[in-house]
Amino acid sequence: MSGRNQTAKASAATMLSGIALKKFQRPCTRPLRTAAMLAITRVSTAAERPLRLFGPDARVDGEAAVFSACDRLRRALPHFVVRELAPMISWLERERRMDSKLPKPMPTEAGIVAFHGRCEAFYPADAVNASVAQQRQWYDALCAAFDASSPAGLTRQDELLAGRIRVRRYRPAQIATETQVFYIHGGGFVVGSLDSHDAICAELAHGTGAEFVAIEYRLAPEHIWPAALEDCYAVLEALLAEGRPLVVAGDSAGGNLAAGVALKAKAVGLSGIVGQVLIYPLLGGDLASGSFVEMAEAPGLSTADVAYYRGILQAPPDELFAHPLKAGDFAGLPPAYISAAHFDPLRDDARQYAARLIEAGVDVTFREEPQMIHAWLRARHMSPGAREGFAHLVHGLARLVGSA
Amino acid sequence: MSGRNQTAKASAATMLSGIALKKFQRPCTRPLRTAAMLAITRVSTAAERPLRLFGPDARVDGEAAVFSACDRLRRALPHFVVRELAPMISWLERERRMDSKLPKPMPTEAGIVAFHGRCEAFYPADAVNASVAQQRQWYDALCAAFDASSPAGLTRQDELLAGRIRVRRYRPAQIATETQVFYIHGGGFVVGSLDSHDAICAELAHGTGAEFVAIEYRLAPEHIWPAALEDCYAVLEALLAEGRPLVVAGDSAGGNLAAGVALKAKAVGLSGIVGQVLIYPLLGGDLASGSFVEMAEAPGLSTADVAYYRGILQAPPDELFAHPLKAGDFAGLPPAYISAAHFDPLRDDARQYAARLIEAGVDVTFREEPQMIHAWLRARHMSPGAREGFAHLVHGLARLVGSA
Repeated sequence: MSGRNQTAKASAATMLSGIALKKFQRPCTRPLRTAAMLAITRVSTAAERPLRLFGPDARVDGEAAVFSACDRLRRALPHFVVRELAPMISWLERERRMDSKLPKPMPTEAGIVAFHGRCEAFYPADAVNASVAQQRQWYDALCAAFDASSPAGLTRQDELLAGRIRVRRYRPAQIATETQVFYIHGGGFVVGSLDSHDAICAELAHGTGAEFVAIEYRLAPEHIWPAALEDCYAVLEALLAEGRPLVVAGDSAGGNLAAGVALKAKAVGLSGIVGQVLIYPLLGGDLASGSFVEMAEAPGLSTADVAYYRGILQAPPDELFAHPLKAGDFAGLPPAYISAAHFDPLRDDARQYAARLIEAGVDVTFREEPQMIHAWLRARHMSPGAREGFAHLVHGLARLVGSA
Repeated sequence: MSGRNQTAKASAATMLSGIALKKFQRPCTRPLRTAAMLAITRVSTAAERPLRLFGPDARVDGEAAVFSACDRLRRALPHFVVRELAPMISWLERERRMDSKLPKPMPTEAGIVAFHGRCEAFYPADAVNASVAQQRQWYDALCAAFDASSPAGLTRQDELLAGRIRVRRYRPAQIATETQVFYIHGGGFVVGSLDSHDAICAELAHGTGAEFVAIEYRLAPEHIWPAALEDCYAVLEALLAEGRPLVVAGDSAGGNLAAGVALKAKAVGLSGIVGQVLIYPLLGGDLASGSFVEMAEAPGLSTADVAYYRGILQAPPDELFAHPLKAGDFAGLPPAYISAAHFDPLRDDARQYAARLIEAGVDVTFREEPQMIHAWLRARHMSPGAREGFAHLVHGLARLVGSA
């Protein structure tokens, strides 16, 4: 690549950082914000600069500046950036026209609608300005607010694995299988902890009669790619060294990491994973198609949020373990239980990964919860659809660990 | 279309009928026979003439005549046939060169290998010259030879539905669900009956706690497309009129018909099907790719056999209910349990249909039995892999009828 191109690309990234970091006065609707976020993501990708422009405090709140900046870039930069920008500007303009006509997807089940309202009300009005540490505390508290009491007789033990990584072991009162479950929590690679998913792990362990091991992996933005995957893989190796069969499981960003460690284990020839459970996982699909468009403004998670979380992790686009849908060969991966939520921009990531696994001959049980939104696991005690989805999840996991 | 093209196409079909109906002296290996059969299938499709050339007594036993006929056709016929023939001739020639190098797929599990040997030994050496009626008797006897005794307390009752179609109702001793199962037997649209799959239906009804209704639909070559689908659809309507939820199920050609009636019910807005179970189904995939090539010479069913069975049914290529993989829209189809056998040319039909359903948001459990061959259901009492596959099938069906 020529020096001139590199300079131009760096300029593009810098200018867009300026846009993203500035807070604009005129508010815009979420679809337009989504479109603007995606446009910036694409330009940043074209400029081969990771998305440093997206920090927790750097949301884009106005599209006018994006148009203006695109226009400046179009005049100032060489052809390779113009080529990327032209379709984006057309798209932004179409989005602006369509704005009032766009559907606002929303399930009809009262329980999950109430759950969403309760989540939205949890954060203070100025939450977006809070520190990352504060966001994590709120997230743990939010998660705990939806939990039921711990299953009778279940015990927990915290320890370190691989010398430095905190894990929590769950031992249910009735153990029905020697297979262990390695659980990787969600939270967009940014929030979540041993506490945030504590009750979920406890109830799944109780329901399946399997011992669970949950991990506290390093989070972004302090630790970018591949820190989280490295932590998960180190724990995977430690658990497999115990000589018992293992199922890897995770939700959302944790589903991404679970699929990632399964792919890496296959690539390096590490055996012993007998199943993978991916719950509304983030798998690297195209943000400009399918459910990322249809469900761009879904309650609980927007496509702009997905772009934000992807950006903050800074995983290079060609890292297959970070973007499992881009892996070319799925043959020989462990049998899977894959759960999608219908009202979730990540819905098609789940559908497509399930389809790719099956085409490669992998056993898959796929379920799409028809009334659910992203992160519905937390709604299992207040929504009938979430309760049913959780029962299916317990059953699917029990099949993989061999206790059903 | 011009009259001249129609005449030319009719000539092509007639000449190829001549090739197929004649018995050639020089025997050739099965891969070459497969290639020749496929070539003829393609020419016939190009000629828009259904495959009358394939009768039970009309197997192609030599490739030389195919080459010779292709050559004559190439000289005699207009461009549209030449265009179809050229790649086929290249392919035949490549197949002839590759003949000795082709893999002969074979599972390693002793139980299923013994099952295959027992099936092969069942027919007399000159079986291929027997009448269709004789073939059907042998098939029923073969099926019965592998059955165990009937489950305790299960009752059967034969009756007519839709005024003319024979069905058999199975009522297990313990009924665990109101959902009924409509079972459609396999046998390549040519053989099979209420008797051939009697024990399979009885054991599945017993295992799932569901009442079963099996059908005796009209068979080819006496009754070509759409007779079988019409019979199945008429019974489907009669059963749904009873007001109970229904799961449709079938193996091999019966899996084709089960998928077909589910598609038709969706197309006409007939509701009440709550699940579909497709066991090594025939779904209209491309005979020149994937498992149809890899498993062309699999034990128990070859790709040539598939071409033969497709041909004898004479379903037009554009009939979506006969070729479910060609359907453009799978959204809203009933949840599915789909079972593939690894050593089966139809394997990829199952994989691809499962993938298409999931991409459309349909809940699917897909299993590929790693050591099984086509028609392994009959091996359930003599092969560990078939026993395990049958247990999974019972479980998958029980989930769909709501008894597990």
